[in-house]
Amino acid sequence: MTITAEVSRVIAELRQQACDLHAQLTHYELVIWTAGNVSARVPGRELMVIKPSGADYDSLSADDMVVCDLYGNLVDGALAPSSDTAAHAYVYRHMPDVGGVVHTHSTYATAWAARGEPIPCVLTMVADEFGGDIPVGPFALIGDDSIGRGIVDTLRDSRSPAVLMRNHGPFTIGRTARDAVKAAVMVEDVARTVHISRQLGAIPPIDPADVTALFERYQNVYGQPGGYTDTIQENNR
Amino acid sequence: MTITAEVSRVIAELRQQACDLHAQLTHYELVIWTAGNVSARVPGRELMVIKPSGADYDSLSADDMVVCDLYGNLVDGALAPSSDTAAHAYVYRHMPDVGGVVHTHSTYATAWAARGEPIPCVLTMVADEFGGDIPVGPFALIGDDSIGRGIVDTLRDSRSPAVLMRNHGPFTIGRTARDAVKAAVMVEDVARTVHISRQLGAIPPIDPADVTALFERYQNVYGQPGGYTDTIQENNR
Amino acid sequence: MTITAEVSRVIAELRQQACDLHAQLTHYELVIWTAGNVSARVPGRELMVIKPSGADYDSLSADDMVVCDLYGNLVDGALAPSSDTAAHAYVYRHMPDVGGVVHTHSTYATAWAARGEPIPCVLTMVADEFGGDIPVGPFALIGDDSIGRGIVDTLRDSRSPAVLMRNHGPFTIGRTARDAVKAAVMVEDVARTVHISRQLGAIPPIDPADVTALFERYQNVYGQPGGYTDTIQENNR
Amino acid sequence: MTITAEVSRVIAELRQQACDLHAQLTHYELVIWTAGNVSARVPGRELMVIKPSGADYDSLSADDMVVCDLYGNLVDGALAPSSDTAAHAYVYRHMPDVGGVVHTHSTYATAWAARGEPIPCVLTMVADEFGGDIPVGPFALIGDDSIGRGIVDTLRDSRSPAVLMRNHGPFTIGRTARDAVKAAVMVEDVARTVHISRQLGAIPPIDPADVTALFERYQNVYGQPGGYTDTIQENNR
Repeated sequence: MTITAEVSRVIAELRQQACDLHAQLTHYELVIWTAGNVSARVPGRELMVIKPSGADYDSLSADDMVVCDLYGNLVDGALAPSSDTAAHAYVYRHMPDVGGVVHTHSTYATAWAARGEPIPCVLTMVADEFGGDIPVGPFALIGDDSIGRGIVDTLRDSRSPAVLMRNHGPFTIGRTARDAVKAAVMVEDVARTVHISRQLGAIPPIDPADVTALFERYQNVYGQPGGYTDTIQENNR
Repeated sequence: MTITAEVSRVIAELRQQACDLHAQLTHYELVIWTAGNVSARVPGRELMVIKPSGADYDSLSADDMVVCDLYGNLVDGALAPSSDTAAHAYVYRHMPDVGGVVHTHSTYATAWAARGEPIPCVLTMVADEFGGDIPVGPFALIGDDSIGRGIVDTLRDSRSPAVLMRNHGPFTIGRTARDAVKAAVMVEDVARTVHISRQLGAIPPIDPADVTALFERYQNVYGQPGGYTDTIQENNR
Repeated sequence: MTITAEVSRVIAELRQQACDLHAQLTHYELVIWTAGNVSARVPGRELMVIKPSGADYDSLSADDMVVCDLYGNLVDGALAPSSDTAAHAYVYRHMPDVGGVVHTHSTYATAWAARGEPIPCVLTMVADEFGGDIPVGPFALIGDDSIGRGIVDTLRDSRSPAVLMRNHGPFTIGRTARDAVKAAVMVEDVARTVHISRQLGAIPPIDPADVTALFERYQNVYGQPGGYTDTIQENNR
Repeated sequence: MTITAEVSRVIAELRQQACDLHAQLTHYELVIWTAGNVSARVPGRELMVIKPSGADYDSLSADDMVVCDLYGNLVDGALAPSSDTAAHAYVYRHMPDVGGVVHTHSTYATAWAARGEPIPCVLTMVADEFGGDIPVGPFALIGDDSIGRGIVDTLRDSRSPAVLMRNHGPFTIGRTARDAVKAAVMVEDVARTVHISRQLGAIPPIDPADVTALFERYQNVYGQPGGYTDTIQENNR
């Protein structure tokens, strides 16, 4: 596969973006040591940018990010790709609208995953971002397509950008890598709040019609038209 | 509505203040990603300063803050106002002594809100700041006056500056925006402490007469006469 | 009461020390907003240095610290002393070996205090620092000697430097203000660990003879002979 | 015992490394005040580098680290060695492959230790790093070989690099001090996640064959061939 100058530029930007987004995982304490990873699809190419395996977050640089094809083969970079690369690659092959994938072992989301229990839609914030209960995916061993298939089978017909893989932890997807990181931050936050609430009693559900109203408003009305980052840049010009 | 030079100066100050107070929300980990908001009433004018919708806390500047009238219409600013603007505006229209409003989804306060359970007044700190149990407000959808009405109906005859909106999260009010932020910090703190205490057994209540004694002392005797900030500035001159 | 040059110098040092120790309270997240306070006795004088009332931790300077006599009357300083000054003063009047007092509303210690339940001595760390269960003191209103008397009556015949005041929070004492801050840090830590352990089952106690052996070793053998700070300074000279 | 120039150089490096690794203990909030310690074996010599007793983490420098023989006698350094030196020394004497030892009182691991309950292998992360349940060691007093013997007896025939010492806290071992610190970080993380998960129900176990598959893959395939740090340095040359 040849990489043109234009694709090189896009890849360099995605490497920087992926590097910056990994810093959000540590900022929100979703990962420890070298666990967890963010990837970004290279738009219009059968390529992705992903974290190297076993890499320290503190010393991670944009250059360390590796480029793989959508079967997980290394295309560019000096380091071995994340051990979760096959799962990310499977998602990109089977979900063409997905531009970013994130995996963490964040505490509360993993706690729901370990019990194999979906996070119920009992907060407006769950309705806003996840559009209903946050689903559980199968137990799957690392090393082949099992994890990727589990993610895709669970999320394909769901509004939720997050799946809780049994005995393992959450995977999240998004239109962009930033959206997938946002979903990773929010799944941990709602996993924690609903867990704590449930410790002292039952939580009344939200009416499904209200869930849909909240989801549609949040997805379409919330934020700046054209996106916050672009609007701010325009504004500051 | 014309904005005089004097009002412009006040608005510039409030924008800076609101920006600084948003940093307190992240400092105390009351918000994640772009959720949560602080507003300040422009004294003597039918105006308020509020956070733009979907704005990153890290890059938030005073200039990003938007000015709206008390029906939520944008008066000044390049960005769309917070999606909670209507709720803030309703509070200012119906509670003339309120100068600041804060909304978060802070974990423990939202956990009580999700169960629809008031936080009982079992700590001197609850008595000091809230003067009794911290009340629950109704479930309300975003998009009209429902949330604002729920806040006002719950707090109008209460000593508490905080209301726990069902399945949603806390809103707090104050004489100033800083007071409302203080209440947001304290509601999360007492929500956490009382939750944790209750996990291992019942908590004896505080006698209502003692609650009143604590509340009145804290509201009237605690701190510096004339307020800490002013006293410190005077002191350092 | 006249303040000599020598006492002035000691007071200046204690003001700086008390200021630095307040930063430990925020570092260990034992306090929020303006709550909590540290005081230090002026050795050999009927005086103490304490935090002003309602003071922001972020802007606190050594000069802001106020000097009071041991009845809580302001002797030097531009600000009103902490609303807990009377309690600190009572402790200094009745416990001549105490050189420092700390008060916080730290979450887990306050949770035990709210239930009125002593923290059982089930960790070697509790035995080391507290020499047994951490006791509960009475419910007491602010405004007279009730809190001070509750602290002294509870700690006078105890090995523990910490008391859990009912529905309120912990007070700790020490030979120096630093020792009292250390006890405040450790009481929160063991309160949290024992709470969490107890959530999933019973904890076997430590044999009282072993508690005494641990306490005596930790009080007499742990650390550097002559104290860590002095040894380090000697070492670096 | 004479120390050659070459050994001096190695010891200087290990002092710096041990100092840097202590900063990881505070970064991950595994320790408070002066508790906790890291040691590193001096390869091929009957020596170890360890933290001084009662030392502040904030002011800890490489020079403060002390060198002891494997019976805990001070060989080089101006400060008294950690009060846990005898336990570290016993491990090095009896486990020749161990190059690093870490001790903390981290909250959740200590909570399991206090109940005397092993952490069950219900997460892929537990299988990856610990290869099965994380075992409990005996209650042992400080002051002789009891703690060291308890660690060695528990870990000698275990895949786990962590042991939960009853009523006390975790000790971890590793091929290097960095590996032992990694195990200390991970034991707290999985202790927390499994604790939280179990609060709301039972967790299905992972099949023992899958545990072995995960353990062997993680120990042999994860990370960079030759180690991340070396690969990165090579890469950046």
